[in-house]
This record gives sequence, C-alpha cells and structure tokens, in this order.
Amino acid sequence: MNTIEKAKAAKQASFRLASIDDSKKSEVLKIVAELLKEKQDYILAENSKDLELAKADNTGDVLVKRLVLNPQKIDVIIDSLKDVASLKDPVGTVQVKRELDTDLILEKIAVPIGVIGIIFESRPDALVQISSLCLKSGNAAILKGGKEAVNSNRALFSLFEEAMERVDPLFKNSLQLVESRDDIKELLALDQYVDLMIPRGSNALVKYIQDNTKIPVMGHADGICHVYVDKEADLDMAVSVAVDSKCQYPAVCNAVETLLVHKDIADTFLPSVAKELTDRGVELRGDEATRKIIDAKEAVDEDWETEYTDLILSIKVVDDFDGAVDHINFYGSHHTDCIVTNNSVTSERFMSVVDSSSTLLNCSTRFADGFRYGLGAEVGISTSKIHARGPVGLEGLLIYKYKVRGNGNIVADYAEGRKSFTHKELK
Amino acid sequence: MNTIEKAKAAKQASFRLASIDDSKKSEVLKIVAELLKEKQDYILAENSKDLELAKADNTGDVLVKRLVLNPQKIDVIIDSLKDVASLKDPVGTVQVKRELDTDLILEKIAVPIGVIGIIFESRPDALVQISSLCLKSGNAAILKGGKEAVNSNRALFSLFEEAMERVDPLFKNSLQLVESRDDIKELLALDQYVDLMIPRGSNALVKYIQDNTKIPVMGHADGICHVYVDKEADLDMAVSVAVDSKCQYPAVCNAVETLLVHKDIADTFLPSVAKELTDRGVELRGDEATRKIIDAKEAVDEDWETEYTDLILSIKVVDDFDGAVDHINFYGSHHTDCIVTNNSVTSERFMSVVDSSSTLLNCSTRFADGFRYGLGAEVGISTSKIHARGPVGLEGLLIYKYKVRGNGNIVADYAEGRKSFTHKELK
Repeated sequence: MNTIEKAKAAKQASFRLASIDDSKKSEVLKIVAELLKEKQDYILAENSKDLELAKADNTGDVLVKRLVLNPQKIDVIIDSLKDVASLKDPVGTVQVKRELDTDLILEKIAVPIGVIGIIFESRPDALVQISSLCLKSGNAAILKGGKEAVNSNRALFSLFEEAMERVDPLFKNSLQLVESRDDIKELLALDQYVDLMIPRGSNALVKYIQDNTKIPVMGHADGICHVYVDKEADLDMAVSVAVDSKCQYPAVCNAVETLLVHKDIADTFLPSVAKELTDRGVELRGDEATRKIIDAKEAVDEDWETEYTDLILSIKVVDDFDGAVDHINFYGSHHTDCIVTNNSVTSERFMSVVDSSSTLLNCSTRFADGFRYGLGAEVGISTSKIHARGPVGLEGLLIYKYKVRGNGNIVADYAEGRKSFTHKELK
Repeated sequence: MNTIEKAKAAKQASFRLASIDDSKKSEVLKIVAELLKEKQDYILAENSKDLELAKADNTGDVLVKRLVLNPQKIDVIIDSLKDVASLKDPVGTVQVKRELDTDLILEKIAVPIGVIGIIFESRPDALVQISSLCLKSGNAAILKGGKEAVNSNRALFSLFEEAMERVDPLFKNSLQLVESRDDIKELLALDQYVDLMIPRGSNALVKYIQDNTKIPVMGHADGICHVYVDKEADLDMAVSVAVDSKCQYPAVCNAVETLLVHKDIADTFLPSVAKELTDRGVELRGDEATRKIIDAKEAVDEDWETEYTDLILSIKVVDDFDGAVDHINFYGSHHTDCIVTNNSVTSERFMSVVDSSSTLLNCSTRFADGFRYGLGAEVGISTSKIHARGPVGLEGLLIYKYKVRGNGNIVADYAEGRKSFTHKELK
C-alpha cells in the first residue's frame, strides 16, 4: 500500500476500533510484551543493523545512544506495555448524562479521535510507546519513524501486527508504518483521513509540521520555564526549589531556564543560590542588577528566550510582582512556571495571571510531568491552548460524542409549545 | 491602532481578563443590555445607513434581511445578553483535585483560552452574541464583521466599550474591532497573539480561513445529516422523525439531507413517508431501488454529498446495517445522524460505529442544538475532532491549566526514593 492507501485503511479501521472491547486492546499489548521477550534476539539483531549504518554514516554519539536497544531497555519497554495495558479503559466514560425530556436522554461520551499521525525521530522505543497509547485509546495510528531506525522500527512494528492478528481480525490496518521522507509530505496533506498529528522530536520538526499541514497538531514544544522568588519567600526553600528545577535533570523541557528575583531579597538570596548552583557546575548569566551582587556572565536579550537544556541559568532581578509576571508571559513558552512565596494572596494572583499550562507554588518545576501528576501514561507535554494542555495522558487522545436516545421525539412538538424540555442532570 | 497593535493589546488584556470577577463580567453584559434599550434610536439609525448602502449596491434580499435590525430583533438581543449574564461562571471550575503527596496538591482548573479571533458575515446581532460569550468566558476577542454591516457593528461595539469602561478599567482592550478586508489576512498571520479562530459564515469562508492560518480553527461546518430506517423500525415513528428532521427548519445544518432505508421495509415505508414529505413540498431524489417503489427524481453521486438546506431529500435503499453505516461514514459530514429501530443491539452498534458528533436513536436530527441539549448558550456546532465537538457551549471557549501547591517539594526526593507519591483523588 502507498501512503494514501494506508491512511484510508487506517480510517476504515478506526471506525471498528472505536467500539472494540478493552480486554482485547489490553490483550494485544500483553502479547506484544511477551513477543518482545521471546524475540529479543531478533529485535536486537535488527537494531544492530541500524547501529552499524549509523556508525558508517558517522552519526553523532547522542543520536546513537538514543538509537541503541539492549536487554535493559527492552525490559523497560515491556514494563511500560504492561502498565498501559492495565490502565482503566478511557473510552466510553460518560461525561454528561442529562434528561432532555422524560423519554429523551442525552449522553456525552468519551470516544477516540480517529486516526493519529505520529512523526518521531531516532528512539525506536517511541514506536512501542506511541502504538500502545493509540491502541489503548482506540485510535488508529500512522507511524513515521526516523530513517536511522528503519530496521528496529520494522521489527518492533511486526510484533504489533502479529499480536493484533492473534487477538482479533478487527484490528487489521489499525497501525500503519510509513518509512520514506517523502511519505511525510504526503501524510501532511491527508487531512481527510488523519485527525491529529503528533510530532515527537526537535522544535524544528514540530515547527515544520505546524507550517505544512491543515491537520491539527498537538505540539510537544520545548519549555522556557521560570522560578520567581518573591520578596516574601522562604529563602532556604527558594534555593532548594531553584537547584532542583535546574539540576535534577537539566536536559528536559520542565527544567528551569530563568530565575527571577525580587529586588528586596536579591542581596541575601543571590549569593546563597549562586553558591549552590555553581557547586553543581551551573553557568550563571545575569542582568546588570544581578551582576552587581554575584559573579555571572552577562545575560543578553536572547538569553530570556533560550531553552538551554543544559547546566546554564539566566537570572534577572525584578522590581516587583508585575515585573516578574510580565517577563514570564512575554518571554516564557507558557509551559511551567513557579513562584516561591509565603504570601497566599501573591501566590494565588501569580497562579491566575501567569498564562502557563502549569503554575506552581513552592515546589520544583520538574513536577510538571504525566507520571508525577498521576495521569497514568504520558503522551507528551502540550503548550497548545486548545484540546490538551500541559502533561497529556490518554485523555488527550480522546474527544467526545453526544448520544441521544428518544422515543420518536420530534422538534416541532417543542418548538410549537406542545412539549417542553426538562433538562435534568442524571449524572 | 493597526491590526497587530490591536492583537497585542488584546493579548495583554487577556491575562487580566482571565482572573476578573464573574460579577463584573455579568455587569458589563447587563449594562450593554440597558444601553441597547436607551440608545435604540441611534443603533437603528446606524443600521439604516448600512441598509441604504446595501440597497444602493443592489444587495440581494436574503442578505438585506439578515442585515436589518428592528425593535423586535433588539429585544431578542437584549434577552440573550441577560441570559448569558445569568449563566454560571464557567471559569475556575475544578476538574481534578489530587493529592500528589500530603503537602503537594494538584488542581486542574478551567481557564479562558486567551484571545479569540472571530470573522463573521452580515448579521450585526452576531457581534453582540459573540462578544458576550467571549467576555463571559473571560476571553479577549478580535472581531471582524462584514463590510456591509460596518456602521451597525461600530455602533453595537461602542456599547460594549462604554459598558466595560463603566464597570472596570481592567476590561480595557478586551474587545477589538477590525474592519477592512485586508485586516483578515493580517489577523490570520498573528498566531503569536490569537489562540483560536472562529469563522461564522459560509462554508467558503470557513475553508478559506482553515487554508490560510496556523491558528487553530473551530469550524462551524455545514451538516450532511442522515436518518437510517432499520428493518425493525416502528414505521409510523420513522415517518414522523424523517418529516420533522427535513421540514421543521430545512435551512439549518442539523436538518436531514439523506434518508437511508433498509430494503426489507422499503416497500411499506417509502410510499407512506413519500406522501407526507411531498404533501409538505419536499422534492425527492432516489436511487434506482427507491425509484422502483416511489416517484422520485434520479439521485446522482453528487446528491449524497450535498447539503441542500432546502426542501429536497435524497433517498437510498440499503441492503443491510453495514450498508447504512458505511454510507454515513463515507458521505456524511460527521455532524448528526439518526437511526430509527426497536432493536437495542442494532441501535447501540449504530451509535458507536457512526463517527459523528451526535448519534441519535428514535428522535429528530433537529435536536442536535446547544439550547435543546441544555448547554445554556451556543457558540456554534463543531464537526472538528479535537477540543470541542457537536453543539458547543461556553465550555468550548475554555481550556484548563494545572496548579500545584507545595511546601518546598523537590523532585530529587521522589526520584531518589526518599519520598513517594500518594496520588489520592480529593474531588
């Protein structure tokens, strides 16, 4: 099948998949987990082919590290498959149940979105994670992996095909793999078949996709996150929160990039936080006011809009609360921002007016994460303002539909006053 | 201000608007209602200017009818303002409250989307309806009305400006009016300031906007709706539902366009439904099997994908349930589709596999409507598969944000096993 035929087939499959039993979806995932164990040698052999090609191409170490599979990584993948299998079925949840009239009942029900197009780079474990989340949520998926992982992706994909075939022929065509770079362009044009695109990879990839398709894109953007230390902060707590937000795992999107410090406490706070940060190897870049108090490189305008994903932190002294909020709303990526303060009026105001998917009080930005938020499984983190925002769980792969059950009811009776609506909540 | 400056100003205003008291938002709407009464003569005079220009331009009757304001229409607008004002504040609803640890609490809260761009045609009452829904939901809005209503729109807009100024200076810049055709192009490019576009008007307008912006578009598409009469239907009920679905108000998107009839009951059902429909002036177009039973014009392929918005109905005889479902999923617009049957296995299956925003059992398609569904106010009907689907109320103008309140919690403690998450639902 070519890309268009695959997309059509996925669309057809999605209608069937929408009403398939959860036990069957979970069984597929459990069988994939078993097959991963059984066929581990085969998977690793296919992965080796990709690694050899990558080395022949002089691929960088970082990319190779992401590409490599090994028994430990496979065990992690197996566990995550079992985890997703064991989650409560997200499909069919009744969100609203309302009596419109005594014999006319409205339900608003969670249903799959349909066909999800996913474009991901290098890491072959992403294929397994994404396929399992899509299947569990009753969505068909079209998967486009990086060409550097083509053999690994094919091998992993074949496990899903085998498992789906074993469990029920209704799964046929639910997952589609496309491989060439040209397929991306074709895929992006198929808005009649693909309901949502999820790019997983660099900012450049996300931007390219947003700019080249009419299909809605759930962007997993990078994060420019802030910690604002208010004049009424517990300064020891502020040091600890700032250090964890930067150092606990600096390469990820919910690590802090800019520290904002109220001028009234800057003299006391900056030296102590600077010591802890530089002890951990963090490079500091400060505005003029900061550099009057501590040693730091000069921060230029570009620093306020840079996601370092590294042990670098920009620091700015602000005159007041509004200065902090304006800086965050202007330079931030509306991802995750934290205030450290003991004043509850100040904190509530911050958490309302800062326009970010997560606003935090007195805790590390690193908490903004699907697992830590208790979402069960994480599709990614969205900075979009519609549909799904912040850490996105299975719920983000669902939409709803209305079902109305009547007894021959016609609108004319209501429009002409012979009957009237009761609008009584039943749930 | 030019369009970019207006958009920037609206974005700034949206941050303040997000946390403004509901009582103030409602007060603005009530004052607009009062001003509409007080300044009715002025509004009607401005509207007359538009009508005179329209007549000079030889504008068609339909457009002029939409354009005209009169005391009765103004009373309707006043009532709808009061209705929206009296709705429960949709902002701030707690959707999830979860203990992550005994001193770390997660909340998921409904918040406004931000800045909504609205492009609408002719009807000046649309400006009032849209502005009131945006304000009530805490969103800033950029309004672009049709040039044929420029004087009416300016006059109505001035009432909102006056009311906002009276109630609180924080409302400043929350609503922006842009007027020239060129402004649309500029507006569509401002994805850094505008969070959602809502086109209200023809299919051509919606399509143009979808094709020319990176901003998410909430499309209020037309509807190709179906009634499927199953072999186990109550045939009297089926006649009544089909007639209401077509005739109660044929010009709207939830009227039925195609009637699908199971072959086993076609001989009995078709003559009786045809009589009722032709008595009401409906033109029938049938496939070959239909035309063997009743008098009808020939239905061609185009008929299955046409929204007549008129007293025309296409009819097709299907071999079985799957034939009906496949037809609906292929030709339909995923808006609203109905089955008439007494078999609950068949009806449940239909309501699951038909991929439409509303699936109905034994009642008219005309029920798919925000007021009838009890949503309070209707923004429109969406056939999109993400964010908001079907009849959209104020909820469709909201997204959520996560708020986390801690006590100095850092991720390192949880990652390194010194503490563990409790993940206890508090709501």
